[in-house]
Amino acid sequence: MGRSIVHHATVAATDRGLATDSVLIARELESILGSDGVLPGGPRGYLADATESRSLRGRADAVALPTHADDLARVVRWCYAHDVPIVPRGGGTGFAGGAVPLDGGVVIGLERMHSVHRFDPELWRIRLDAGVATADLRRRARESGLYFPPDPGAAEQSQLGGNIATNAGGPHAFKYGVTGAWVTGLQAVVAPGELIEVGGPLRKDVAGYDLKSLLIGSEGTLGIVTAAWLRLIPAPEAALPVTACYASAREGCAAVDSVLGNGLGVAALEYLDAGALVATRDAFPVPLPAGAAFMLIADADGSEQEAARLHAEVIEVLGDGALSVHAPRDARAIAELWRWRDGASIGVTAQRGGKVSEDIVVPLDRLLEAIEGTVEIGRRHRLPACSWGHAGDGNLHSTFLIAPENPGELERAERAAEELFALACALGGSISGEHGIGWVKRGALERQWAPAALDLHEAIKDVFDPKGLLNPGKKLARWPTT
Amino acid sequence: MGRSIVHHATVAATDRGLATDSVLIARELESILGSDGVLPGGPRGYLADATESRSLRGRADAVALPTHADDLARVVRWCYAHDVPIVPRGGGTGFAGGAVPLDGGVVIGLERMHSVHRFDPELWRIRLDAGVATADLRRRARESGLYFPPDPGAAEQSQLGGNIATNAGGPHAFKYGVTGAWVTGLQAVVAPGELIEVGGPLRKDVAGYDLKSLLIGSEGTLGIVTAAWLRLIPAPEAALPVTACYASAREGCAAVDSVLGNGLGVAALEYLDAGALVATRDAFPVPLPAGAAFMLIADADGSEQEAARLHAEVIEVLGDGALSVHAPRDARAIAELWRWRDGASIGVTAQRGGKVSEDIVVPLDRLLEAIEGTVEIGRRHRLPACSWGHAGDGNLHSTFLIAPENPGELERAERAAEELFALACALGGSISGEHGIGWVKRGALERQWAPAALDLHEAIKDVFDPKGLLNPGKKLARWPTT
Repeated sequence: MGRSIVHHATVAATDRGLATDSVLIARELESILGSDGVLPGGPRGYLADATESRSLRGRADAVALPTHADDLARVVRWCYAHDVPIVPRGGGTGFAGGAVPLDGGVVIGLERMHSVHRFDPELWRIRLDAGVATADLRRRARESGLYFPPDPGAAEQSQLGGNIATNAGGPHAFKYGVTGAWVTGLQAVVAPGELIEVGGPLRKDVAGYDLKSLLIGSEGTLGIVTAAWLRLIPAPEAALPVTACYASAREGCAAVDSVLGNGLGVAALEYLDAGALVATRDAFPVPLPAGAAFMLIADADGSEQEAARLHAEVIEVLGDGALSVHAPRDARAIAELWRWRDGASIGVTAQRGGKVSEDIVVPLDRLLEAIEGTVEIGRRHRLPACSWGHAGDGNLHSTFLIAPENPGELERAERAAEELFALACALGGSISGEHGIGWVKRGALERQWAPAALDLHEAIKDVFDPKGLLNPGKKLARWPTT
Repeated sequence: MGRSIVHHATVAATDRGLATDSVLIARELESILGSDGVLPGGPRGYLADATESRSLRGRADAVALPTHADDLARVVRWCYAHDVPIVPRGGGTGFAGGAVPLDGGVVIGLERMHSVHRFDPELWRIRLDAGVATADLRRRARESGLYFPPDPGAAEQSQLGGNIATNAGGPHAFKYGVTGAWVTGLQAVVAPGELIEVGGPLRKDVAGYDLKSLLIGSEGTLGIVTAAWLRLIPAPEAALPVTACYASAREGCAAVDSVLGNGLGVAALEYLDAGALVATRDAFPVPLPAGAAFMLIADADGSEQEAARLHAEVIEVLGDGALSVHAPRDARAIAELWRWRDGASIGVTAQRGGKVSEDIVVPLDRLLEAIEGTVEIGRRHRLPACSWGHAGDGNLHSTFLIAPENPGELERAERAAEELFALACALGGSISGEHGIGWVKRGALERQWAPAALDLHEAIKDVFDPKGLLNPGKKLARWPTT
């Protein structure tokens, strides 16, 4: 690649301050939303997402906090008519800079749109606003004996709309699929400010082109999701995890193959490599063997009987060749284990204070190469590297650890990430399984798709957003030339 | 609706015979595919689909039968450069006229593209050509202990590519989802004749806009699917059906609610209403009670143990209020039951020699209204009407029976279908859950979507097919004005 790596910190360098534009914009938004629906200027909390550890922070003219979809549509209509960029924002937990306003405009925060419009537990369905927190949705379903399987990290902070905008996954996507698999209907605002509704409380619909799936994962660049109908399923009676440690990634990946080869329909199949284990092992609920250099976590769910049967089989299959097996059965110990797993990302960050963490996907038979390749790429760039993630889905959180205060490390990590994308594509995989393209992976899709497919991506963007105002600079198929 | 009903038979009225164009087209195709890859003119078998019972039959200049995706791309490239319409064709089992060449051009039959490129049973995945028959795929998976759940009717004839092009469902979509839920990657030819590949043997991918989902269900109007990567799952050890008869649709629909309300995760939940039972009851494996006016079929699958447990619960829940319950346990009797269910459509057609059969979807709590509304609409148009289908998915095969030799009946049935679409939309549903829009439902989407969504549908078509040559006249969002 002949292009130079742009320092992320330069994004905010063009800060024009609270210019006349900003004042005008805030005033207009107030006429739509009332003064308590607008935060003039760009309050700090709305200018970054989880990429902040990579120094990515933007600038906004104002933050709009609508409480109803109609108001949100009016905000978009005004912005679209006045050439003002629009950056939708959920919980701000993204890892790709998707919610970061790169150079002004209006951030639309969805957090005040958090109504549950309808919940029909007896029909296994719910309609709710995009601003509902993922964890709230999951709890609500559980209280009625139902289950919303997608479980991306940061569930207390992240919102349904953000999950939809990135088509978020999580450990249990292995059995249950990603967020989009559970969305049966969407309400969205599209340019120049129209509310549309596609699908509904419907389990099938092949009438029009699949605008729903097109909006899902589009990272706010085609429209802003305001509400969704979701399908739910009866909650499994039990979910029993099994963790197993191995002496090497090779042995661990062989165990992954054994799970599939034995036809074990586990709900989740997670891993941590040696570096990720180093960063997190002290917090693991039980002592780990000294030689542990790889860990798998499988989850056996179903009826009490079914989960117990599968659990026993998983213990046997994962136990073969393992250094140790930990298979907690009581609710508290199980919750403790998953809390530990959820903390992996933070544990890794804590090692050196910062990280560049990606989310490549590879075919399952290339998993070992991707895990080993991540470490090797780090070595070439003189950075400690590790990975963890969703082994069963071939989805790695490949991570390069940086000390943000050390000059050049972020830049080296960015170069390493470029090599990582090349590796993913060389292995027949994808540059993103969960986080999306956002801003930080701009241009990387050129490695993955043929020019004809890139052209279609760009033409679709033009159809939905002829002025290029919806989350500008994000999810670009090609490296920006201007 | 102020528009008049077009007689379907008029479609073929402009037959220009084997004109110079046809000869030229056939010659050019032969230079690409060889003489055995081209059928000059339009052999009868390629001019109609399952809508033939509604008198829909078209005209083609030639039929191309490529054996490789590259050749198919070359055919498309030549046609696109010479403004020749292109009509892809799978097994020809569609109910919407989607594979019917309306007015000349080249029919591309996929049946010679039937290779299994790669099958990795130990990794639960397969890549195969679009022309593989659905039943072959399902058998192939089964032989390795795996399961491809989508089970649309006519599985011996229908092809994977057609299933993808219509996002086909079937009884077991209730638990397992429709075809698209199993497609992880697509190879397709897009205009003006480029092969693209999106996704792969990947269980997650959020890199680009979801071109894969956009192509799925697009009925050959955005591109031609040539091959697909599918994910599979371990086959359930057992699947035990339960059928129950009720005195009325109301009681039957109450039983559907009970299945969901009791949290029974059945794999399929089918129904036949009174009229569908009349047409099929003589062939049912056991005698049915005289007062039976509604039947439900549920399927309990899973491990031996799990299926047996669920089976017992389903018998209890469906049995409450039923006139009779039939729950076969041996493989032969189970196969006989599903064969009978598969024959429902033919049995209904046999009543009067023809039918207009649609596939509306409604929210589950409106199922009874849709079932009763179908009969009522028939009555208003002096046509016997009935429905059967996928109760759990709220997906009805609402059908108006016609004697094709009686003048005016087809036209009355078409008018009835228009009212049916209006009913589906009034109930918050969709005009199509399985068959797609094809030609016969052209314009019906106007009832369902807001103008802004219709505009997006049309603009997407323009992006993929600027010359309007890919399956022209099909899946139109709006009623054609020319």
